Amino acid sequence: MLIVMHHSASQKEVDAVIEAVKTMGLRAEPIPGSLRTAIGVLGNQGYVDDTTIRELPGVREVIHVSKPYKLVSRDFHPEDTVVDVAGVKFGTGHPPVIIAGPCSIESEDQMLAAAEVVKAGGAHMLRGGAFKPRTGPHSFQGLGVEGLKYLRQAGDAVGLPVVTEVMRIEQLPVVCEHTDLLQIGARNMQNFDLLKEVGKTNHPVLLKRGMSATIEEFLSAAEYLLAEGNPRVILCERGIRTFERATRNTLDLSVVPLIHEMSHLPIIVDPSHATGKRTLVPPMAMASLVVGANGIMVEVHPDPDRALCDGAQSLSGEGFAQLVKRLAKLM
Amino acid sequence: MLIVMHHSASQKEVDAVIEAVKTMGLRAEPIPGSLRTAIGVLGNQGYVDDTTIRELPGVREVIHVSKPYKLVSRDFHPEDTVVDVAGVKFGTGHPPVIIAGPCSIESEDQMLAAAEVVKAGGAHMLRGGAFKPRTGPHSFQGLGVEGLKYLRQAGDAVGLPVVTEVMRIEQLPVVCEHTDLLQIGARNMQNFDLLKEVGKTNHPVLLKRGMSATIEEFLSAAEYLLAEGNPRVILCERGIRTFERATRNTLDLSVVPLIHEMSHLPIIVDPSHATGKRTLVPPMAMASLVVGANGIMVEVHPDPDRALCDGAQSLSGEGFAQLVKRLAKLM
Amino acid sequence: MLIVMHHSASQKEVDAVIEAVKTMGLRAEPIPGSLRTAIGVLGNQGYVDDTTIRELPGVREVIHVSKPYKLVSRDFHPEDTVVDVAGVKFGTGHPPVIIAGPCSIESEDQMLAAAEVVKAGGAHMLRGGAFKPRTGPHSFQGLGVEGLKYLRQAGDAVGLPVVTEVMRIEQLPVVCEHTDLLQIGARNMQNFDLLKEVGKTNHPVLLKRGMSATIEEFLSAAEYLLAEGNPRVILCERGIRTFERATRNTLDLSVVPLIHEMSHLPIIVDPSHATGKRTLVPPMAMASLVVGANGIMVEVHPDPDRALCDGAQSLSGEGFAQLVKRLAKLM
Amino acid sequence: MLIVMHHSASQKEVDAVIEAVKTMGLRAEPIPGSLRTAIGVLGNQGYVDDTTIRELPGVREVIHVSKPYKLVSRDFHPEDTVVDVAGVKFGTGHPPVIIAGPCSIESEDQMLAAAEVVKAGGAHMLRGGAFKPRTGPHSFQGLGVEGLKYLRQAGDAVGLPVVTEVMRIEQLPVVCEHTDLLQIGARNMQNFDLLKEVGKTNHPVLLKRGMSATIEEFLSAAEYLLAEGNPRVILCERGIRTFERATRNTLDLSVVPLIHEMSHLPIIVDPSHATGKRTLVPPMAMASLVVGANGIMVEVHPDPDRALCDGAQSLSGEGFAQLVKRLAKLM
Repeated sequence: MLIVMHHSASQKEVDAVIEAVKTMGLRAEPIPGSLRTAIGVLGNQGYVDDTTIRELPGVREVIHVSKPYKLVSRDFHPEDTVVDVAGVKFGTGHPPVIIAGPCSIESEDQMLAAAEVVKAGGAHMLRGGAFKPRTGPHSFQGLGVEGLKYLRQAGDAVGLPVVTEVMRIEQLPVVCEHTDLLQIGARNMQNFDLLKEVGKTNHPVLLKRGMSATIEEFLSAAEYLLAEGNPRVILCERGIRTFERATRNTLDLSVVPLIHEMSHLPIIVDPSHATGKRTLVPPMAMASLVVGANGIMVEVHPDPDRALCDGAQSLSGEGFAQLVKRLAKLM
Repeated sequence: MLIVMHHSASQKEVDAVIEAVKTMGLRAEPIPGSLRTAIGVLGNQGYVDDTTIRELPGVREVIHVSKPYKLVSRDFHPEDTVVDVAGVKFGTGHPPVIIAGPCSIESEDQMLAAAEVVKAGGAHMLRGGAFKPRTGPHSFQGLGVEGLKYLRQAGDAVGLPVVTEVMRIEQLPVVCEHTDLLQIGARNMQNFDLLKEVGKTNHPVLLKRGMSATIEEFLSAAEYLLAEGNPRVILCERGIRTFERATRNTLDLSVVPLIHEMSHLPIIVDPSHATGKRTLVPPMAMASLVVGANGIMVEVHPDPDRALCDGAQSLSGEGFAQLVKRLAKLM
Repeated sequence: MLIVMHHSASQKEVDAVIEAVKTMGLRAEPIPGSLRTAIGVLGNQGYVDDTTIRELPGVREVIHVSKPYKLVSRDFHPEDTVVDVAGVKFGTGHPPVIIAGPCSIESEDQMLAAAEVVKAGGAHMLRGGAFKPRTGPHSFQGLGVEGLKYLRQAGDAVGLPVVTEVMRIEQLPVVCEHTDLLQIGARNMQNFDLLKEVGKTNHPVLLKRGMSATIEEFLSAAEYLLAEGNPRVILCERGIRTFERATRNTLDLSVVPLIHEMSHLPIIVDPSHATGKRTLVPPMAMASLVVGANGIMVEVHPDPDRALCDGAQSLSGEGFAQLVKRLAKLM
Repeated sequence: MLIVMHHSASQKEVDAVIEAVKTMGLRAEPIPGSLRTAIGVLGNQGYVDDTTIRELPGVREVIHVSKPYKLVSRDFHPEDTVVDVAGVKFGTGHPPVIIAGPCSIESEDQMLAAAEVVKAGGAHMLRGGAFKPRTGPHSFQGLGVEGLKYLRQAGDAVGLPVVTEVMRIEQLPVVCEHTDLLQIGARNMQNFDLLKEVGKTNHPVLLKRGMSATIEEFLSAAEYLLAEGNPRVILCERGIRTFERATRNTLDLSVVPLIHEMSHLPIIVDPSHATGKRTLVPPMAMASLVVGANGIMVEVHPDPDRALCDGAQSLSGEGFAQLVKRLAKLM
């Protein structure tokens, strides 16, 4: 931590800050400059809460060098983490994982048809939403537990592990029972109680980046999971909210190589929710692999034009099979 | 809903879209133009799910005229709603409500001292956080249920109703028991399961705008509460996330008169979290009242320089008393 | 400047950085910490270009303490600047200045009618655009020099100084001749050549904040004007671009008190362009004064429903006169 | 254009709007709905200025179907445009063009060394900045006309066409004389006077997307160039400004396939300015080609650690040569 004093701070004010740092059990190193004095804070093992310092007289700015996360950082865990989800491996040294399936589970038949289509197309894992976070309460909210069963049956029928979103803590046992990978959605990335409870399970987790989460917040959310004892975390970039509305969100692909520098956790990309537009899914999926994503998750519906939710971004079975062929050339 | 066809759409494609609209039980009115055909969709009672239409051949764009909310809209409920919280009234015709207190409840003594200070300064309601949403797991997470008791005691001691944040569904009964107003924080604005459960209580709710929530999403989140039967909803603007980092968030005051046009619900402003900077709190609090806010919520700490959380934005007791005097001149 | 070394940086890498700092004629102070070493850089008189340092082996981050501006900073010029525009004074100690008029100059008659209406309503200065920056080339681009003459005539007729936007360097002499205050629009805030040339005149300047300019960039743009010798600069907040589209831009009122802390230059607010909505102009204008703006600029059109540009945000003469009465109560 | 009336609009108000539309020489088609009436506007040949309509009593919203651009739209020009720059071709059917060189021209020697390095590495065109847009006036502003000469000499020496930024209208003749491709920088994307003058030349133009420009604004800026008679326009995505600060900007790669759908103009990507970080340049460059970019522009410096500007994002000659080899595999 570096404390920058005001241009006009008095020696007495500088001394008071040094005293306050010492009270916190840390060491203070004044660095006098031509324009102003700065004070280096040493001895901390991690992020320091700066509130007792920030508002002392004469303090202009407090600059943090440490980060609010540690367990997820590559600094302290240089080797890549590989997460094994029912035999499917996410991480360096393994081919990128392709997860596919419909946005929503709509019926037993639709789910089975979708599973067959994505299996035939080349997917390694099956997705489907039983609990759906929708902007307004008057939209279809998902089939709930009934849907979970259809998902598991469909996955078993074609031999694919399954992933689905969990939205509330009470649902955790039933979702864990029926799925191989728990998804925490973008809107819940900072639902810290949900993170803590998921962290207490030993179930693999797919953590989606929040709509306006910085990389630091994204990694700090993952830190909640690891801090509770669950290291089986896969990150997922799914687009961030910007001023641009021609696409649903702005897919931030730079985050993939950057996360690989900063963290040892695997990261995949969801180009379907990011773009909201079917024609953009294949190019962005290919780009995801090229920048180093450990997998992609795409929406595929056996009949996308009749999908109850997000049909506009769903690929048909045929479109998906073609995409997988194009992806294979990049692997 | 208006469906805009591509410039080059064939008559057959136009007919197919008309057919699809009819299948949905709605009426289609083609509007041929010089450059392209548009198709008006009539007969819907609210927002129409457009997924079966959006991707039909020849469709260029689907434009929604209806909104995903209805119960919160002034269109269908022209009179202002007044929410009564233990005798304190939020809404048109009542003076703006001043809520004050520390960010976090830190101890019995601190909470009581804070209550005395804000009561003396002129507050109408006491705030304090027992469950704290923190970016990283290594920061202070709040005192929990113990804190709730200190809050209630402090409120009772000085005769002020109390408000605190609820973060998980299982906490709802105990938080309802100890507080007069339930706060749903910005990070949980789209925690739809929490919204639904809070909607099933008849407890007054303070719903904070999400960090990157549009006004439409904000009102749709409130719609979840009303749809479950709880009309006692107070909205709260608390700053949005933008590229600007000189302030913690960008306080969007235009939203206050705009919400008054769009909705019948009362709205207050939290200038402390929005700006993150003590010196900006008084001017932004005054501005909030001038644009029509039904109240403000500010952080006050008996000893802001030693606050465990967000001290930099907390007013001292004296600073708060001065602010209330300045606010009084604007009422 | 503070150079933060990687956790794993070797002593040799630390030494190389120290050497590089010395080569720049500056002093380096290593601050060894428990997790990593930081190096304080001392002796610089202002902002240091960090490019020769940032990419040396072992460097993790370079943190700047100095800012890219100095002349506009209150640190080095504590007294408020007052800018005199043909007798109208912008700055501390003077009542807020009200600038009003149409977005575009449309005709001699319209401009005169507008001038009479704003004078009658209580304005201190007249605005009108002769050169209009429009998103597309097929929209009305303004009357040009002809318009400038109508503006000056109208101002003279009612006894008000005038302000208009200048968009290209060759126009500077003619715009200076016909106007008392030069406006640099949001889209040109970083048109550095225009800034430099305007800086060489001694004409008062109204510098609007760019659509996505940080406060640091805004002040740095003003620094260009002062660096060329023109200290007669008035800043203008006019809304920033965010994800929210219910208003045209998001008016960032916190910037007003913050600029007053950081700079000695006066700042006014344009609530018309910021909100794009007539009903929001009066509340946001009032809020601007409450947070300390040294003036406001609003659009007024004698016949707003027939305005060629931005009619939706223009006040009528009557609406303006009412607003001025409400503003007077806040002064 | 679709005019949506308020829920409570009277028949008289609807009639007045219809009348106003007719006055504009257009046709109005009322579409009565169960909740509200909408009015379709027909007969316009392009974008309609809605200001005389938008504020009529009873009008709730005006929705545009036409766009503010036409010449750049694929709707009216379905074939891809290929821009020939001194024999190097940008557009469909031609291999992606690799432009490389230093951010700033620093000296005759540096420029020649850079030219040799990028030529050897496999570039098709040479870049270098003679006029530099810098946030503050105290940073290096470029060598000016002297630099242009070094650039041209260096290009000629190795046989590569050259591109450089033009910042002011008076510089146009000299910049045209010394360069094959004129660059309009992000900060000048809406410097409409510069666009108009560049549009009057027949020189090829590289138009960079503004920092917070929507796709619609980006295409509208290009429309200025075509409207003045210059169809030799190449677009360039270079990252947009978002809340995320871990990268300098957020590279919006979705824009590439989307622009290909919307426009016939070629588009390239600048991953160096977008990310601001050397290690991110290669993956993002590769991703650019995968999503369909017609070229990339990267910063290469013979000695990146000593670059006067943006060294942190510059590749070394060796790094560049390796990148070209990796790109070749994707072509």
